[in-house]
Amino acid sequence: MSETLTIEAGFSHRGGMERQDTEQRGTEERRDSARAALLAGYQTVRQLTELLAETLSPEDQQLQSMPDASPTKWHRAHVTWFFETFILQAHKSGYCVFDEHFNYLFNSYYEAVGARHPRPERGLLSRPTAATVTQYRHYVDTAMTDLLDCADDATLATLAPLVALGLAHEQQHQELLLTDIKHAFSRHPFAPAYLPSQSFTREEPARLGFVDFEGGIAEIGHDGHGFAFDNEGPRHRVLLHPFRLATRPVTCGEYLEFMADGGYARPEFWLSDGWAMLQREGWQAPLYWSQEPHRENWQIFTLMGRRAVDPAEPVCHVSFYEAAAYAAWAGKRLPTEAEWEHAAVSGRAEHMGGFLDRQHPHPRPLLDGGDATLRGYGEVWEWTRSGYEPYPGFKPAAGAIGEYNGKFMVGQIVLRGGSCATPHGHIRPSYRNFFPPAARWQFSGIRLAEDL
Amino acid sequence: MSETLTIEAGFSHRGGMERQDTEQRGTEERRDSARAALLAGYQTVRQLTELLAETLSPEDQQLQSMPDASPTKWHRAHVTWFFETFILQAHKSGYCVFDEHFNYLFNSYYEAVGARHPRPERGLLSRPTAATVTQYRHYVDTAMTDLLDCADDATLATLAPLVALGLAHEQQHQELLLTDIKHAFSRHPFAPAYLPSQSFTREEPARLGFVDFEGGIAEIGHDGHGFAFDNEGPRHRVLLHPFRLATRPVTCGEYLEFMADGGYARPEFWLSDGWAMLQREGWQAPLYWSQEPHRENWQIFTLMGRRAVDPAEPVCHVSFYEAAAYAAWAGKRLPTEAEWEHAAVSGRAEHMGGFLDRQHPHPRPLLDGGDATLRGYGEVWEWTRSGYEPYPGFKPAAGAIGEYNGKFMVGQIVLRGGSCATPHGHIRPSYRNFFPPAARWQFSGIRLAEDL
Amino acid sequence: MSETLTIEAGFSHRGGMERQDTEQRGTEERRDSARAALLAGYQTVRQLTELLAETLSPEDQQLQSMPDASPTKWHRAHVTWFFETFILQAHKSGYCVFDEHFNYLFNSYYEAVGARHPRPERGLLSRPTAATVTQYRHYVDTAMTDLLDCADDATLATLAPLVALGLAHEQQHQELLLTDIKHAFSRHPFAPAYLPSQSFTREEPARLGFVDFEGGIAEIGHDGHGFAFDNEGPRHRVLLHPFRLATRPVTCGEYLEFMADGGYARPEFWLSDGWAMLQREGWQAPLYWSQEPHRENWQIFTLMGRRAVDPAEPVCHVSFYEAAAYAAWAGKRLPTEAEWEHAAVSGRAEHMGGFLDRQHPHPRPLLDGGDATLRGYGEVWEWTRSGYEPYPGFKPAAGAIGEYNGKFMVGQIVLRGGSCATPHGHIRPSYRNFFPPAARWQFSGIRLAEDL
Amino acid sequence: MSETLTIEAGFSHRGGMERQDTEQRGTEERRDSARAALLAGYQTVRQLTELLAETLSPEDQQLQSMPDASPTKWHRAHVTWFFETFILQAHKSGYCVFDEHFNYLFNSYYEAVGARHPRPERGLLSRPTAATVTQYRHYVDTAMTDLLDCADDATLATLAPLVALGLAHEQQHQELLLTDIKHAFSRHPFAPAYLPSQSFTREEPARLGFVDFEGGIAEIGHDGHGFAFDNEGPRHRVLLHPFRLATRPVTCGEYLEFMADGGYARPEFWLSDGWAMLQREGWQAPLYWSQEPHRENWQIFTLMGRRAVDPAEPVCHVSFYEAAAYAAWAGKRLPTEAEWEHAAVSGRAEHMGGFLDRQHPHPRPLLDGGDATLRGYGEVWEWTRSGYEPYPGFKPAAGAIGEYNGKFMVGQIVLRGGSCATPHGHIRPSYRNFFPPAARWQFSGIRLAEDL
Repeated sequence: MSETLTIEAGFSHRGGMERQDTEQRGTEERRDSARAALLAGYQTVRQLTELLAETLSPEDQQLQSMPDASPTKWHRAHVTWFFETFILQAHKSGYCVFDEHFNYLFNSYYEAVGARHPRPERGLLSRPTAATVTQYRHYVDTAMTDLLDCADDATLATLAPLVALGLAHEQQHQELLLTDIKHAFSRHPFAPAYLPSQSFTREEPARLGFVDFEGGIAEIGHDGHGFAFDNEGPRHRVLLHPFRLATRPVTCGEYLEFMADGGYARPEFWLSDGWAMLQREGWQAPLYWSQEPHRENWQIFTLMGRRAVDPAEPVCHVSFYEAAAYAAWAGKRLPTEAEWEHAAVSGRAEHMGGFLDRQHPHPRPLLDGGDATLRGYGEVWEWTRSGYEPYPGFKPAAGAIGEYNGKFMVGQIVLRGGSCATPHGHIRPSYRNFFPPAARWQFSGIRLAEDL
Repeated sequence: MSETLTIEAGFSHRGGMERQDTEQRGTEERRDSARAALLAGYQTVRQLTELLAETLSPEDQQLQSMPDASPTKWHRAHVTWFFETFILQAHKSGYCVFDEHFNYLFNSYYEAVGARHPRPERGLLSRPTAATVTQYRHYVDTAMTDLLDCADDATLATLAPLVALGLAHEQQHQELLLTDIKHAFSRHPFAPAYLPSQSFTREEPARLGFVDFEGGIAEIGHDGHGFAFDNEGPRHRVLLHPFRLATRPVTCGEYLEFMADGGYARPEFWLSDGWAMLQREGWQAPLYWSQEPHRENWQIFTLMGRRAVDPAEPVCHVSFYEAAAYAAWAGKRLPTEAEWEHAAVSGRAEHMGGFLDRQHPHPRPLLDGGDATLRGYGEVWEWTRSGYEPYPGFKPAAGAIGEYNGKFMVGQIVLRGGSCATPHGHIRPSYRNFFPPAARWQFSGIRLAEDL
Repeated sequence: MSETLTIEAGFSHRGGMERQDTEQRGTEERRDSARAALLAGYQTVRQLTELLAETLSPEDQQLQSMPDASPTKWHRAHVTWFFETFILQAHKSGYCVFDEHFNYLFNSYYEAVGARHPRPERGLLSRPTAATVTQYRHYVDTAMTDLLDCADDATLATLAPLVALGLAHEQQHQELLLTDIKHAFSRHPFAPAYLPSQSFTREEPARLGFVDFEGGIAEIGHDGHGFAFDNEGPRHRVLLHPFRLATRPVTCGEYLEFMADGGYARPEFWLSDGWAMLQREGWQAPLYWSQEPHRENWQIFTLMGRRAVDPAEPVCHVSFYEAAAYAAWAGKRLPTEAEWEHAAVSGRAEHMGGFLDRQHPHPRPLLDGGDATLRGYGEVWEWTRSGYEPYPGFKPAAGAIGEYNGKFMVGQIVLRGGSCATPHGHIRPSYRNFFPPAARWQFSGIRLAEDL
Repeated sequence: MSETLTIEAGFSHRGGMERQDTEQRGTEERRDSARAALLAGYQTVRQLTELLAETLSPEDQQLQSMPDASPTKWHRAHVTWFFETFILQAHKSGYCVFDEHFNYLFNSYYEAVGARHPRPERGLLSRPTAATVTQYRHYVDTAMTDLLDCADDATLATLAPLVALGLAHEQQHQELLLTDIKHAFSRHPFAPAYLPSQSFTREEPARLGFVDFEGGIAEIGHDGHGFAFDNEGPRHRVLLHPFRLATRPVTCGEYLEFMADGGYARPEFWLSDGWAMLQREGWQAPLYWSQEPHRENWQIFTLMGRRAVDPAEPVCHVSFYEAAAYAAWAGKRLPTEAEWEHAAVSGRAEHMGGFLDRQHPHPRPLLDGGDATLRGYGEVWEWTRSGYEPYPGFKPAAGAIGEYNGKFMVGQIVLRGGSCATPHGHIRPSYRNFFPPAARWQFSGIRLAEDL
C-alpha cells in the first residue's frame, strides 16, 4: 500500500524525490496505517484544490480563455467526477450520482465512458454554478470518506491504487487550475493578480556550471515502489552516451541576451515548425512578457501581478521551439529524458524545491551553490529533446483508465522536473510530463545539455 | 420635451404606435411635467433592465456564446456607461467616473471615444463582477437623478434628448439581453429555461388575408414629434407602386409546409448567398428548432424551455435568407420598408401587441380577426426587402453620437415592427431595426407582400 | 429583332449609349438583316474572346488566384458551354455535346442544370487543356453558325434573344477574363505584363465640376428596345430628390490627398464593415498600389506592367467601402443608381469612352472639357449608394436562365457606367453591374454626388 | 569517391541495399572511374526526372493541389536550382545564372539563401513556362557536365559529395513529383491516369509470419561508406529489447477486415490526435479509396487510373495514425526505427524490390515465400513508432546545406524502407524518411512488430 505514502509525502517535504521505504513495518500496523494514510492523503489533496480556488469569484471560476485551458469550476468538478465514476459508481453499493448530467459535462476525454461536452465550450457552462460544484465536492467527499472508512481490507487493497490515481490526477489539475487561471487573467485588459504581490530582492543567480555523466547502460522508468502513472513503465535498460547537464535552468537574464542577439529574428537557431510558429504568432519573447521600448523595461505578468522581469530568475513560459532555439544559440542542446532521469537519481541532484508547497507560484532565482550539483527542480518544468513515446513493452491498462496516458503518445514532447505550481509529493524522478511543442502556458523552462 | 412621453408610454400600452400629442398643455405645467416624466422614464427603464437580469446568476451573466452576442453583465454596464460618458461626464460638473477602466471595457463601438475591449472577448471579463456592476448602476443612477432633479430648465432642455437617446439605447439592449441569454442558454447541453414554462393551448391561427394599398406618393420617416433615432429621418416622399400586405405573420404551421415541400433542399427558392449559407451551416429549420424523426416532433427551444413547435404561433428566428426563400416558395415577396411604414400608419393596422410588456418573450398565436386589418405587430420583427441605406438627405450627427446608426448602413437588412422582446414604448412606425441577412438569433419573422 | 443590333453596335462606337431605332425599315429587309446581324454579332464577340486570350500561354490560362476569379481557359469554355447548353442542346436537333464531362466542369452557378465543379478549384483543371478548349470553341461555333444559317424565321425569332443573352454573357466574361488575369499576374512575384507598356504623358486632368438635377418623378429601367438583362426591368417610376453629380470620376491625385489626410487611418470616414475590413486586410491604398516611402513614389500594377501612379487618371480598384469613405472625407456622397441613370439619359452626359474598344485596359486621364457635361463613362465602373435589389415588379425568368441575376440580389452594391475593360456595345444607361462592397479587383472607381 | 557508385547502383538493381565495396581497385583507375561514374550518375538521374515529366502537359505540370505538394514544373526547376546554387555558383568560375529571379522562385526552404516565394503559391507561377524550365535544365546540365569534365582531381574530390547530395536530392523529388501529381489528379473530378492502366491478376498474398530478433546492443546509422544524408549519422550503439517483425507489409485485404470491424468508428484503437483528425476530416478509409455501398466495391485511385481495391496488395496511403490504429486493433505495434534498421541488415531481409525501377508506381502483391524472411521493401514506406529526432551526437552541417534535415526534427515520424516510387539506388538501410503523422499522400504502409 505504499502508494498512499507518496501522497502523504507530497505535503511534508522530505528534501528529495526518493521513495519511502516502509517494508520493515509489521503487517497489522501497516494495514491501519494504510487506511489512515489513504484518508489523510485524500483529505489533504481535496482541501488543497478548494484552497487554490478560494480567492476566485464565481465569475473567475467560469473563465475559459482558450480551448486548451479549462475553467476553475470545471477542474473542481472534473476531478470529483473522476472519483465518482471510477470509484464510487464502481465500488460503492447503492451509490446515487449527484447529478446524472455531470457525466456528460465533466468527462474530459474518456471515450469509453460515453459522449461528453466539447472541450472548447466549457466556458459556456454557467450551470452548475460554483456553489453547486462545492456541494458536489462535499457530496462525493462524504461518500468517499464513508467508503474508505468502512471498506474491508480486501476492498481497501483494491481501492488504494484507484484512490492514489484519483489523487495524482487531482494534483495534476491543481497545477492546471493555476496555469489556466493565469492565462485567463492575462487576457483581461487590466491583468488582475491571483495572489497579492510579494516584494523581492534582485540577486545574482548561481553561476552556470555543468555536471558530467559517463553514460553506459542505465535503468530508467518507475521501479514499482509507490504510485506511478502507467506511462512511467516498464522500467527498462537504455544505453546512454556520455553527456553533461547544466547545474541550473537558464535565467531570464541569459534569455534576454539571446533576444538581444536577434534570437527571435534569426532562423538559423530554430526548428522549421518553430520558425513558422514564431512568424505566424509574432512571438518576440516568452509568453506573458510585454515589450517596452528598451530591454531594461520588459514586464512580466505573474500570478502575483505584472512587474519587471527579474534577470536572476529562471525563464519560463517558453515553448519547446524556443527552448531548442535557445540551446542552439548557446551551442548546446536539450537533454533526452533518459539522460535527465539518469542524472536525477545519480546522487548529484539536489531537491529542495520549490514546488507549489512554497506557495509562491512563480520560479525564484537560485543563489550560488556547489558547482557539481544539479539544482532547480521545482522551479520550472524542463523541456527535453524527447518525443513522448511508449517505453519498450508499454501496454495501456484495459478500459477507460487506459486512456489516461497512452493515447497521447504522438506529437508531444516530454518535460521533466516539476514547477513552482506542482505539488511536490506529486512527482518522482521517473515522472513524464508532456505537452505539444508550441505550448507556452505551463511553467516550462530550459536546462542545457551537451555531448561529452 | 415630448421625447420623455414616448418613454413613459412605453410602459403603459395605449393600443397604438401613434405619438402622443401634448401640445395643448400650458407651458408651466409642461415644464414640471417634463422633468417628472424624464425622471420617471429614467427610473422605469433602468429598473426594467435590472428586473430582466434578476433571475440570472453571476455565472449566467458572464456568458458570451458568440461574438455578436454580449454577456448580460456587459449589457447592464454598457448602457450605464452610455449615461456616464455622454451625459454625466459632459454635463455634470465635478462628476467623478466610477472606475476609469470602464471606458475601455464598456465602450461598444464608438471610435471617437477611444480604444476599447474587443467584442468577441467580453465573455472573458470576470472583473468587474456582476455585483460591482450593480454598484456601478446605483452610482450612475444617483448621479443622473441628482442631475435631472437640479438642472435648470435650459440645461434640462439640453439634456432631455440625450436622456431620451440613452433610454432608447437601454431599451434596445433590453431586447438584446434577452436574445443573447437565449442564445447562450441554447448552447448549454441541457438548455436551461430563463423563465418558468407556461402552459398553453394550441389554437387555430387567424386565416391569412391580404390588405390592398394603391400606392402613389407617400411620406415616410419620422415627423419630428417625439424621440426618434437619426436613421429614421429625414422624413421624405417616396413613390409607391400598388401592393398588398398579409394580415399577419407567417406561422410555424405554414413554415412546416415549406419545409415539408423541400424548402431547405431546393435551391430555386433561395438567394445565392442564402443557399451557400444553408449548405455551410447545415440549416434545416429555423434556429432553436431541433429535429426529430417525424415532422410532428419538431421541438423548439424558448426562453421558457424546450417544447413542441406550436403550428399556430408566428415562426421566428429565421434569417432574411429563409424569409426570402419562404416568400419565393409561397409565390409572394417581402415588403419594402416604405410599403411597410405606409401600411402601418394607414389606419388599417391594429397595434395591441405583444411586446416585452406582455412578459412572455415568445411570439403567441394570433386568433381570428377582421380580414381587412394588419395584425401581429409586437410578436416578431418582420424582415423587409430593403437594404439598410441612408434616407435622402440623411446626415449623421457630429461626434461620437453620430456613430450610433450611420456607419452600419451597408450589408444589413431593415426589419420593421417590434417583437415579443421589444419594450412597446421603444418603437414607432418609422422605427428601422437592422441586422445582417444571415442573423437568426433575434425574434425575426416573415410578413408576406405582393404586387397588385 | 433589335437585340442583335445592339450587339453589332458594340463594336462600332457611335458615340453614345442610346439604343438604335430601326423601326422604319421594311419587314423583309429586317428579317435578312436580323439573321446577318445575329451571325455577325456572334462572330465578332466570339473572336474578341480569342483575341483577348491570344497572348496568354497554356500555363497563364490556367491560373486561378482567388475563388472569385476564374482561369482564362475556364472563361473561354464556360461561355461556350452556355451556347451549347441553352441553345444547341435545346434547339438543334441531333446535336451531340463535345464532351459530356463539360456540363459538370463549366457550369458556373446554375443549380437547375445539375451538379458542378466547385468554383475555388477551377485552377486545378489541367484537363481539358487550352488547346482542347480551342477545339471546343470551334466545334460549338460551327454548330451555332449552322443553326443560325439554317433556322427558319420562326426559330430564328425564338433563338435571337437567347443568342443575344449568350453574347452579352460572353462580353461580361471578356471583362472578367481581363480583371482575373490581372489579379493572377499581380500575385506573381515579378508581376508580368499582359500587354506591352505604352508611353504616356502626364497631363492635368479636367477640373471637377458638378451638374445639377432638379429631381421629381423619373422613369428608370430598360424600355424594352434592344437587349437587356432581366434585372434592368421592369421600367418604373421613381421619385428623385434634387441632386448634383460630379462631371468626372475622382482622380488618383485627389485620392492621394485623401490618403495623405489620413484617409486609411481615420475611422470617422468609414462604414463600420469597411473599417473592419481595412484593419483585417491592412488596406493602405487601392488594390495594385504598392507603397514606397514617399507619396511621390506610389507604384501601380496595370495590365501593361508596373509604373508610377498618374495623378491625372481616374482612381480605380477601390472597394465600395473606400469609395464611400472618400466621399465622406470629401463632404459629398455617392449617387443612387436612380440618380445615376436619370443623369445618364438627361442629355447632359457625354459618351465618347473609353471602354475595351480603345484597347488600353486601364483608365486614362480626362482632359478639360465643358463644365456642364458628365464625362468619363467607359473609364471606370462607378460605385453607387444603392444595394442591388429587385425593381418593383421584378420577376426572374422561369428555369435555369432565371438564375442569371435575381438570386444575387442581396449583399451586393450596384455599379454603373462601364470601364476600360467593358466592350462598349455591351452596356446601356439602364445597365446594372453589381459586386460585393469589399470587391476591388474590378475597374471600380468613384463619382461624387450631393444633395441640392 | 564511392558516393557516385551508389548513385550508379540506383539504376541497376543488384538485389540488395548493401553498399558496393570498391576498395580493391587501383588509385588511377578509381579516379577515372570516379569521374565517369559521377558524370554517368548525373546524367542518369537528370534524365529520369525528365522521363517522369514527359507525359504531363504544361497545364498538368503547373498543378498544386495542396500546400504540401508542388507542381511538376517546380520540382524540375528546384532540383536544377540546387545544382546551380550550391555547385555552379560556388565552384564554377564565371558562371552566369540562367535567370536571377529563379533564386527567389525555386528556393524551397533555405533561409540562409535569402527570401523565397511562399510554398502554397507555387501553383500561381505560370512563368517560367514548362518550356523555359526545360531550357533551364539544359543550361545547367551543360554547365555541370562541363564542370565535371574539366575539374582537376582535387576539385572533383570537393565536388563529388555535393553532386552526390544534389542527385540524392533530385531522387527525393522524383518520388515527390509522382506523389504530388497523383494528389493533383485525384482532385480532378474525372481522375485522369498518369500512366496507362495495366491488367493484373488477383492472387493470394504471402501468408503473414514473424521473424524473431533477440535484441541487445546494436549499431545503427550510416557507416560512412557511400553517400548518406547527415541525419543518418552519427552511427551509434543502441540497446534493443527482444522483438519480432512481420515478414511482409499489411495487405488491403487485412486492412478491409480492420475497417469491417469498425476500425474507423472505435476510438479505443486510436491515438487521441488521430481520432480527432479522423473526425475532423471524415476519414473512413485510406486516401484515394472511394466508398461504394458494399465492401466488395471499394475503388482505389492509382497513377494508372481508378480500379477495384486488390486485397492482395500492400495497403498504402495511410497516415501514421491509421497505421498505429491498425496495429492496436491487430494486437501488435509498429517497430521502432532502430529495430527496423537492425532487422534490415540482419541477413534475414530480402531486397528484390519493387521501387520506381519497376516502372509501376503502385505496390504489388507479394506472393508466398519463405516464412523466415523479411520481404516487401520497395513496395511501401513503413511507418515506425519513432519520432524523427537527432541521433546522439548529431550536428547539422554549417551553412545552408545544414538546413537540409536537422531543422525538421520535431513533429514528424520516421518511415523506413522505400516505396514503388522510390529510385532503388536512392536508399540504404540507414535511410530515414520522415513525414508528419497525418500525412497520407506518400506511398506509406504498415509493417507490424511485437515484443518477444
